Amino acid sequence: MQDPVPAYPIFSTDSLRAWIDGLPPVRALLGSEPGGWRIREVGDGNLNLVFIVEGRAGSVCVKQALPYLRAAGPSWPMSPVRAYFENAYYAAVAPHVEGLIPRIHHYDAGLHCTVMECLSPHVILRTGLIEGRRYPNAARDLGEYVARASFFTSDFARPFEDKLAGVALFAANTELIRISVDLIFTDPYRESARNRHTSPGLDAPVRDLRRDAALKVAAADCGRRFLSDAQALLHGDLHTGSVMVTEKDTRVIDPEFAFYGPIGFDLGACVANLLLSWYSQPGHATPGNDRSAHQRWILDEIKTFWETFRLRFLALWAGHGRGDALPAAMFGAADADAAALQAARGAFVDSLFADMIGFGACKMIRRIVGFAHVADFERIADADLRARCEARALALARLLLTNRRQFR
Amino acid sequence: MQDPVPAYPIFSTDSLRAWIDGLPPVRALLGSEPGGWRIREVGDGNLNLVFIVEGRAGSVCVKQALPYLRAAGPSWPMSPVRAYFENAYYAAVAPHVEGLIPRIHHYDAGLHCTVMECLSPHVILRTGLIEGRRYPNAARDLGEYVARASFFTSDFARPFEDKLAGVALFAANTELIRISVDLIFTDPYRESARNRHTSPGLDAPVRDLRRDAALKVAAADCGRRFLSDAQALLHGDLHTGSVMVTEKDTRVIDPEFAFYGPIGFDLGACVANLLLSWYSQPGHATPGNDRSAHQRWILDEIKTFWETFRLRFLALWAGHGRGDALPAAMFGAADADAAALQAARGAFVDSLFADMIGFGACKMIRRIVGFAHVADFERIADADLRARCEARALALARLLLTNRRQFR
Repeated sequence: MQDPVPAYPIFSTDSLRAWIDGLPPVRALLGSEPGGWRIREVGDGNLNLVFIVEGRAGSVCVKQALPYLRAAGPSWPMSPVRAYFENAYYAAVAPHVEGLIPRIHHYDAGLHCTVMECLSPHVILRTGLIEGRRYPNAARDLGEYVARASFFTSDFARPFEDKLAGVALFAANTELIRISVDLIFTDPYRESARNRHTSPGLDAPVRDLRRDAALKVAAADCGRRFLSDAQALLHGDLHTGSVMVTEKDTRVIDPEFAFYGPIGFDLGACVANLLLSWYSQPGHATPGNDRSAHQRWILDEIKTFWETFRLRFLALWAGHGRGDALPAAMFGAADADAAALQAARGAFVDSLFADMIGFGACKMIRRIVGFAHVADFERIADADLRARCEARALALARLLLTNRRQFR
Repeated sequence: MQDPVPAYPIFSTDSLRAWIDGLPPVRALLGSEPGGWRIREVGDGNLNLVFIVEGRAGSVCVKQALPYLRAAGPSWPMSPVRAYFENAYYAAVAPHVEGLIPRIHHYDAGLHCTVMECLSPHVILRTGLIEGRRYPNAARDLGEYVARASFFTSDFARPFEDKLAGVALFAANTELIRISVDLIFTDPYRESARNRHTSPGLDAPVRDLRRDAALKVAAADCGRRFLSDAQALLHGDLHTGSVMVTEKDTRVIDPEFAFYGPIGFDLGACVANLLLSWYSQPGHATPGNDRSAHQRWILDEIKTFWETFRLRFLALWAGHGRGDALPAAMFGAADADAAALQAARGAFVDSLFADMIGFGACKMIRRIVGFAHVADFERIADADLRARCEARALALARLLLTNRRQFR
């Protein structure tokens, strides 16, 4: 995957219409004649074109990777092979997370393009939370999702040979892993032209943070484990902007950062972004709605997320623990053996909680003082109010990161 | 590397002579005419043919991987691609461990064959220790070796992209990794037709061991980390039979088990086999030499090994810490930053000590109750005496494994 990528056509609505016309299964999904399809480009991310194609019988979503960072234009090149890793991730987890990812209809490696289910009337979870909406299933579904995607790609579920084949494949996703390494674990803790923060409100806490040697060691230790601890196939960017929801349905999207790493990294992304939402709520208060009830609900959902993950991961292990790590074959029928095995599994899941806290804190910090921020805070127009919300979130993240093994 | 391997000729002394005749650089090393070369097959391992070829000007060693386990014959097939991984390992570490591995003269991928320096008058370290000989540099050289080979292939020394390329390459070495997973971390702790132990002397402790649920959890936890914690490129089988020595020189050989894993696995192999040697010494006592002085020397060498490793690893880190893990760029010029970085590096090296104890204990246990035993014990003809030596070693290993984080 490291060779130069040949040039490829970037879709316009017209060229996309012609291309889909040549894909009979997708045509059949849409129904009607190509001239009758409604095609809109709706991408708001930084890396891709996203088209919605609607026909009489149905609709699809087409995602094409651009060869450069969209916000920066062609001056910041980015390999479009991330579409390959996105599809490889979907293919690897699809048997285990049915109903929690979009259906993939077609993938074209040469065009770096995926045709997938159009999720409607789904909205981005982050957007819904900013608007004060509740999604009763989202946290539970996400806990289930991380449990299934990580368990079944770990050494607990399958022969290590299968995992190593996956490790080798995703080891080539270096361009996006580099983004994580630099933007999550390094830049936020030093002066960098890529960083920004709400100024002057956050100037003092940011200066303190970059002088906090113990915090930097904790972040660096998380970064070290991110690079070496290949526990399971991770989504790699599982924040609330990578989740589409309705009141009943939850779908995980945008797994182009996929690679084998510590399970706590995906767990931490979920929790971090729910906590950022919690801290941002006062910034979205209106007369008559101070958002405190919404905050209470978010906090409950964080607990639901972790508890669902923990219980489901252990249940999957009990039912499908046929891998090479902690092999059941070593443990006999004796009560002591069964109890010890159960305790060992519990201890491993406890270690994931500590990892979730640590990685989650890193992810909170990078969204406040690093390159890429979150709409939860960005949409707070009053800079002083925004800085107060961000400062509180930053203070919690620092506490969590330096004490990540003390929380339960 | 997973495709079926085409058939290839297995060398006889005659066919080897003709083949070398076609390799001008090797011919030049040997001098004289092919008819004057003395060729002997000296392999005593289980996996390979090993030839010594001596000419008037010099000698070389030729190692050819067999497509089956030598002890079992063609009924136990083994892929000869391990020669590929052995050469890939040598190539990866050679720039960093000059003088501590044999010089590689030629590698033929199709013949699964390597022509390397003939180490003479070197002997296998294990054999020398059994004979009661001292090698003043061996432990220090091995500490230096593990420090250099592991540091320079870790995320502390280089961009993670380079490490991931290596991870992907060695992830295909599944056949030999499978041997380690089964024979080190699983079989010794359960009934298996592949296990054996000195009977009846060890029957009771072996029964106890297989009922010790806490011990099995500890071993399984080491096995889990063996599979997922890709800290550095490991030799993978660094026991005293993989080291050739003279009183002045030390060379590490036979790295076909190479893969990316926890550094403590290589450290533990060294220490485990020195401890096994220590425990075996009473079995080699003679009238007038109870071997107690030799035991004291071995114990000193174990300390030397660890201390050399620790100091050298930290020194390399101080001088060459340019990788993505614990990046120096995060830490400024302030005293607090420098102290925190130094403390973090020290804490990581301390974690390697605990890993060394755990993996070392696993390796001691597998050599006493598993498939492959060590000559240190096997050469004790008196089964009762052998069982007493083994029982003491086994007791220590159990203590170390269940308390692996308590030792300093």
